[in-house]
Amino acid sequence: MMFDTVSIWGMGLLGGSLGMALRERGLARRVAGVGRDLARLETARARGACDAVTTSAEEGFAEADLVVLCAPVAVIADSLPRFARCFKTGAIITDVGSTKRRIVEAAEKAVPSGRHFVGSHPMSGAEMSGVAYARADLYVGNPCFLTPTIRTDPDSVARLAQMWSAVGSRIVLTDPERHDALAAAVSHAPHIASSALALLAAGLGEDENYLASIAGSGFWDTTRLAKGDVTMWEEICADNPDCIAMALDRLIEELRTARRLIAEGGDIRDWLDRARQARLELDDLRPAPAKGPAT
Amino acid sequence: MMFDTVSIWGMGLLGGSLGMALRERGLARRVAGVGRDLARLETARARGACDAVTTSAEEGFAEADLVVLCAPVAVIADSLPRFARCFKTGAIITDVGSTKRRIVEAAEKAVPSGRHFVGSHPMSGAEMSGVAYARADLYVGNPCFLTPTIRTDPDSVARLAQMWSAVGSRIVLTDPERHDALAAAVSHAPHIASSALALLAAGLGEDENYLASIAGSGFWDTTRLAKGDVTMWEEICADNPDCIAMALDRLIEELRTARRLIAEGGDIRDWLDRARQARLELDDLRPAPAKGPAT
Repeated sequence: MMFDTVSIWGMGLLGGSLGMALRERGLARRVAGVGRDLARLETARARGACDAVTTSAEEGFAEADLVVLCAPVAVIADSLPRFARCFKTGAIITDVGSTKRRIVEAAEKAVPSGRHFVGSHPMSGAEMSGVAYARADLYVGNPCFLTPTIRTDPDSVARLAQMWSAVGSRIVLTDPERHDALAAAVSHAPHIASSALALLAAGLGEDENYLASIAGSGFWDTTRLAKGDVTMWEEICADNPDCIAMALDRLIEELRTARRLIAEGGDIRDWLDRARQARLELDDLRPAPAKGPAT
Repeated sequence: MMFDTVSIWGMGLLGGSLGMALRERGLARRVAGVGRDLARLETARARGACDAVTTSAEEGFAEADLVVLCAPVAVIADSLPRFARCFKTGAIITDVGSTKRRIVEAAEKAVPSGRHFVGSHPMSGAEMSGVAYARADLYVGNPCFLTPTIRTDPDSVARLAQMWSAVGSRIVLTDPERHDALAAAVSHAPHIASSALALLAAGLGEDENYLASIAGSGFWDTTRLAKGDVTMWEEICADNPDCIAMALDRLIEELRTARRLIAEGGDIRDWLDRARQARLELDDLRPAPAKGPAT
């Protein structure tokens, strides 16, 4: 038993899946589901994601050794001042936000001494959101960033790392600034590029039946991300604009280089080959896909 | 029996797979493998891709009712004048090149009257090339462009369409110009974008082990194409530079729009939503993945 009580604020895909994983693996004596929508909380309880539910943050956080905030980054950042007085002494508080600077900054201002905030970003998701798609193995085999700063309690980082490891994540430690820059390059820019490729095809003015019939697997794969939840991606863009802009500048620069080499008959082979080698090297180092949860 | 003798010039992934499919489905009495490398031809024969082999185009094409040229676009275009006198009267000649303007133009100049050239582009491929990866179901469920012009014999188009349908392809008819523009947008630009995303990640200066550990499925999927055969892609870029440049210009324009909206707090939601809707509409129209070959 790693924790007595874990309170999860926001029982959607990420919060619901974490509750299921904690309960299935016996990592908490009690998981409390906290949120604003009682019907959704009851659905989460019915799915086995929590033992108890409440719409009161005060009540829901009072006994929690670990509080996990599962809401959009802006909502978490704005709610932290109000929540701060509800955390019990010694509690560890974390979140699952896709960007980290804003939340960590808000937490370091709001959370009183004796309560320990550590930012988390589990890189687990799905095209579908909501507790209906939650599953206990959502975190298995996926990276989870922890983003301590100079002000973060090391023991709390260690306990949180144990928790995320225990639900199947691979722990990656970095600071919030570096996290947001890396995420922009390996996650946010690929999403924007995928959307831009979908718009390029749509802008051809061809009949959609025709377009769908001529698209090959390369098109379907590179544009898959464009199907992602618009609200979530709008929020990510709003929370990480400078890093995303910098990553897109670099991406555009690479595309302009390729365009120039192709149009002018330059050495596109070397450019293609550098990309291929880089991708193959990463492939070789790619962690093996994890199996389902150990039982 | 659709053809008496089919001659395939170039027994690699595409040529070998076509030979296997024709033989397995009883579409030709005899498949002749023609090429420059006898050892490779013998491997193709051992794998069941042809009945006979020869390194002489004159001999290999003499009896062929259908000749399929399976080589890089430039090689086919350059070889056509030499091959032209080897095709028998009434023969249908086609190719499998990824771009069509250059080959069709060369063929319309070189092929004498009474022999019928029709350009083909089966959008089937794999990351691995060579006859070792050939398989009889390579074409099943994938689009195959046929690119007739005003000078093309309609009966030959019809017979060729029957052949590609019989090995499992979905036939798409268009002219060479439109083919190359469409392919640039839905295939060539996605490949370049995928390579650019791989170079963006590689350019971060992070340790590769670290990068591989933080990459999520979005990164792996959007950069998968970057692993493709460099020689083939170099050739495609050389054969279709104007259309690729135009597609990349549009892609860069979309990325610049997104970058501006994100950096300036504009309506990125609408941009993301248009991309999502476009992709979802295509998804709904996506032809069902075909099953293996009918027996």
